[in-house]
Amino acid sequence: MSSETLERAARQMRAQDVDAVLVGPGADLRYLTGYHALPLTRLTLLVARADGEHVLVVPRLELPRAQAAGIPDSVRLVATEETEDPYAVVAGALHGLVAGRLAAGDRLWALFLLNLQQAVPNASWFPASVVTRELRMRKAPAEIDALRRAGQAIDRVQARVPALLRPGRTEVEVGRDIADAIVAEGHQEVNFVIVGSGPNGASPHHETSARVLQPGDGVVVDIGGTLDGYCSDCTRDYVVGAAPPGYAEAHTALEVAQAAACAAVRPGVTAETVDAAARDVLADAGYGEHFIHRTGHGIGLEEHEDPYIVAGNREVLEEGMAFSVEPGVYLPGRFGMRIEDIVVVTADGGERLNLGERAAVVV
Amino acid sequence: MSSETLERAARQMRAQDVDAVLVGPGADLRYLTGYHALPLTRLTLLVARADGEHVLVVPRLELPRAQAAGIPDSVRLVATEETEDPYAVVAGALHGLVAGRLAAGDRLWALFLLNLQQAVPNASWFPASVVTRELRMRKAPAEIDALRRAGQAIDRVQARVPALLRPGRTEVEVGRDIADAIVAEGHQEVNFVIVGSGPNGASPHHETSARVLQPGDGVVVDIGGTLDGYCSDCTRDYVVGAAPPGYAEAHTALEVAQAAACAAVRPGVTAETVDAAARDVLADAGYGEHFIHRTGHGIGLEEHEDPYIVAGNREVLEEGMAFSVEPGVYLPGRFGMRIEDIVVVTADGGERLNLGERAAVVV
Repeated sequence: MSSETLERAARQMRAQDVDAVLVGPGADLRYLTGYHALPLTRLTLLVARADGEHVLVVPRLELPRAQAAGIPDSVRLVATEETEDPYAVVAGALHGLVAGRLAAGDRLWALFLLNLQQAVPNASWFPASVVTRELRMRKAPAEIDALRRAGQAIDRVQARVPALLRPGRTEVEVGRDIADAIVAEGHQEVNFVIVGSGPNGASPHHETSARVLQPGDGVVVDIGGTLDGYCSDCTRDYVVGAAPPGYAEAHTALEVAQAAACAAVRPGVTAETVDAAARDVLADAGYGEHFIHRTGHGIGLEEHEDPYIVAGNREVLEEGMAFSVEPGVYLPGRFGMRIEDIVVVTADGGERLNLGERAAVVV
Repeated sequence: MSSETLERAARQMRAQDVDAVLVGPGADLRYLTGYHALPLTRLTLLVARADGEHVLVVPRLELPRAQAAGIPDSVRLVATEETEDPYAVVAGALHGLVAGRLAAGDRLWALFLLNLQQAVPNASWFPASVVTRELRMRKAPAEIDALRRAGQAIDRVQARVPALLRPGRTEVEVGRDIADAIVAEGHQEVNFVIVGSGPNGASPHHETSARVLQPGDGVVVDIGGTLDGYCSDCTRDYVVGAAPPGYAEAHTALEVAQAAACAAVRPGVTAETVDAAARDVLADAGYGEHFIHRTGHGIGLEEHEDPYIVAGNREVLEEGMAFSVEPGVYLPGRFGMRIEDIVVVTADGGERLNLGERAAVVV
């Protein structure tokens, strides 16, 4: 990997008056160095400095993987022994910055942060997203290509779903087949599989259960995986046999709401404008109190990242931002429904990366 | 779930002079409340107080899952709205403790900890493990039963492995079949699958790759899943066709080393004694520099937890502690090997929870 991303990060650090960013295994580390580190109890930590003196501290037994990862030449790789204090090694990498302004990876474990705060007690700490969100939020063309390929793959999985949703099967059984299809269609990893049938669909983050699919069920299928490092995420709705009372009207309103939010996407509008576009349609149709979550979340190396499409977020959309547009309607004890596409902000509007049928498919 | 675990946690807090433990989604939350929360960007946080006034803060859309989780009666459930500041809600739950001694979950995201440190600026912070490790490290009989069932399930998976390791197949193909078998044998989740063939076996945390199995390969198969909340973890070695030069001698030494470490397990000895028992055998046989990691890690609700079986750890073993014993030998560019069983400390020794063949199986 070239050092170009780290150079942009260093410029962003200087702009934000941050001296160094300290990130552990996860998306920031992959973004900055290309290294897919394992989330171990042993400390793996990149110290990326505004002055360019970057150090990656890894446990010795991870050294072969780190060496094979092709990290940028500007990063010095330091292996720690099993009985060595890795925080002392990090403190050494922070030479000249013991009272510095340091940014810790947003998802770094608190244990690591508390140990770092103790090892460098005079530093001030900030979340690394003050540096990385500005970079990661604006996708480069190659990143959008990767999201598009992931989107096409998950569309192919949704196209297989009707054949899997037979009455008498459990959500778990269907979910396993979907997980296999996520891999078969090109993802390297399955991130999550939600099959919410009947009343289970009314809990937005229900995963799968032993519930048996029955005629008259609405079924929410929200699935995602990782393909070449980038995430897919798509929700479609299905009906087993005949739709339950009230379902068709609600779904029609939902389709209009989701289309309105997608149509609202363009450079210069705020994130909350897109949320309001979906919310207003559902409120006017009488479902306002049943749309109980934000309209969407950014997506890229992580399933959920900036920008969030939510009331109160005045972030102005720019070309290259990518996020989900996924309004839903949830009627407790009866059914739920959600339509989700990933949308990328283009020069003059938005491009949906998911193109499959959005009407509820009767199976 | 009963409040008994929370009551023990409160006693431990008072013993450690900690006023409250703040844990997010993960093993501590499952241990204390039974709630399997999703690791979301929205804050889910249990405030468990030494005085018993426990509060679980969840995003509103998680409320149905939290209500269905059967959390203890002593925990007050508070839902936050999408546009509400959850840290202000947590600060409210910390009434009387704004300058308190607070313990943050070891794996809580740094972003959450930094926000909590800002919301309660006069508190002192510690890792939650000062409270939870003492509880979680000593398994109750029901927990040991769960680990035993997980161990039996992963033994059945290892018994299937010889049929999967055919020359011409890739590590990835074998790994997918193993992942399916992990679920088929009763686990709800696949935690990891390592298939390290030939030189790949010499990198202890290699996962799987496109490398094709060949006659003369040593293959390390290290696999684990979660069954009823508790983790399995077992490593066995296989040889495709004939063993490569030097393999048989090294494996014999490894078998002796692993048996010696298991035999060293009993109440009253230190964790590092068990590490030394394996390490001394391998050093005497000339493989000391090729055993490049600690001998083991605790296991339970998490794959890696206390106690760690490593030089320098003078923790005294007690009945009910459970950990892996997994020495290995790694010859860069040639092959690797590791034998791993989970061992529980009994009243007068150790019980292995993995019982399958430990010699290298020729396939």
